[in-house]
Amino acid sequence: MSAAASGLTVLGIGGLGEIRPGDELGTLIAGASDLRDRDVVVVTQKIVSKAEGRLVAVAHDDTESRRRLVESESVRVLRRRGELIIAETPHGFVCANAGVDFSNVPEGHAALLPRDPDRSARRVRDAIRGACGRHVGVVVSDTFGRPWRRGLTDVAIGCAGVLAILDLRGTSDAGGRRLQVTEVAIVDELAAAAELVMGKDSGIPAAIVRGAPEAWFGDGRVGRDLVRPAADDLFR
Amino acid sequence: MSAAASGLTVLGIGGLGEIRPGDELGTLIAGASDLRDRDVVVVTQKIVSKAEGRLVAVAHDDTESRRRLVESESVRVLRRRGELIIAETPHGFVCANAGVDFSNVPEGHAALLPRDPDRSARRVRDAIRGACGRHVGVVVSDTFGRPWRRGLTDVAIGCAGVLAILDLRGTSDAGGRRLQVTEVAIVDELAAAAELVMGKDSGIPAAIVRGAPEAWFGDGRVGRDLVRPAADDLFR
Repeated sequence: MSAAASGLTVLGIGGLGEIRPGDELGTLIAGASDLRDRDVVVVTQKIVSKAEGRLVAVAHDDTESRRRLVESESVRVLRRRGELIIAETPHGFVCANAGVDFSNVPEGHAALLPRDPDRSARRVRDAIRGACGRHVGVVVSDTFGRPWRRGLTDVAIGCAGVLAILDLRGTSDAGGRRLQVTEVAIVDELAAAAELVMGKDSGIPAAIVRGAPEAWFGDGRVGRDLVRPAADDLFR
Repeated sequence: MSAAASGLTVLGIGGLGEIRPGDELGTLIAGASDLRDRDVVVVTQKIVSKAEGRLVAVAHDDTESRRRLVESESVRVLRRRGELIIAETPHGFVCANAGVDFSNVPEGHAALLPRDPDRSARRVRDAIRGACGRHVGVVVSDTFGRPWRRGLTDVAIGCAGVLAILDLRGTSDAGGRRLQVTEVAIVDELAAAAELVMGKDSGIPAAIVRGAPEAWFGDGRVGRDLVRPAADDLFR
């Protein structure tokens, strides 16, 4: 059983329309795309938050209200510079503005992170199965910065039906030596690949990654498997 | 001109054989694959380092020699835990063991990072052009850990012919508001997508990402464009 795909196709899913609270994303996605078993469906946090009613009213030019909102979504502030706040969320994510999102939302509103993005992913997966019978993996993605490197990349904040981490411990390299790299965060790589077809302004809030090997599927959870416990973390 | 791909295909490149010092990687890759103009070719650091003769002898069970080697490749040690050293390299990368790699190399050796991975990428790109006439972008990838998140992902350490960062400043979201996310590290997302078809033990040390939009091509450099200057960095 190979741990790598022999080839992947990444396809955007558009035509979902403006997402409103209560929308069943999995049903909409199944209707807007031709899914196959073992596709991985990547869904942006933005539409998950909209479907889950995680929009709150805040005047974008009211710096003080924005700051209070970000702090209310934080369990710890790591850094501040000007209006930028790098904070840890209750999920354990470390990101700008504690994941509070002021763009691509209705005027005067902000989108908060889903309360439990792994549960959000399971809901999308189950709705897809109900709507079209396909067994897929689902990743909820968001756009984060990183220390030491400029620019942002999409990472996974939730998943269902697909492993968060591919554990290669016990496997060997081509020379028969034990692999030094043993845990690959495949959900983050899937989120990154999907971002390349979604962009930030394209009206493509979801994507399919097709061609995943069987070894990638299983009961993965970002919160349990990928968020590094504070005790193991050299950087908190 | 859209900044997102309308669809991508990711294909592994195998059959390169064991890479030796002096091998011209671009020529080997052009011979082992059916490249097209505007493909992005992702090449792992491992084979770049081998082709550039960046292997050094070190006994893997000699902890002290390993430590000295890692320190000699570091400009600054950020964290230590047991034998793990998180260090900054002369390139400005922050990673485990200062990028010194002890797996998938000949017994008793370690692979050091290329001295100038952007230059390495240019060399691969130029050799591909010379061998088959195709104009491609090239990314040199390596496998790094991250603070706060478990597991490793591939990121770019060098590039040529493709932008490191896609700058969306001045563009608007679907509602006409200025985008909050303005700089996307597309080379890191390309490296991550490529890792999914390369794995760690599969004998696939390079990959093609096909379908990149014209907007992604240009004179990108990881060292100049993506490494965050210490003065701008909240985490060093």
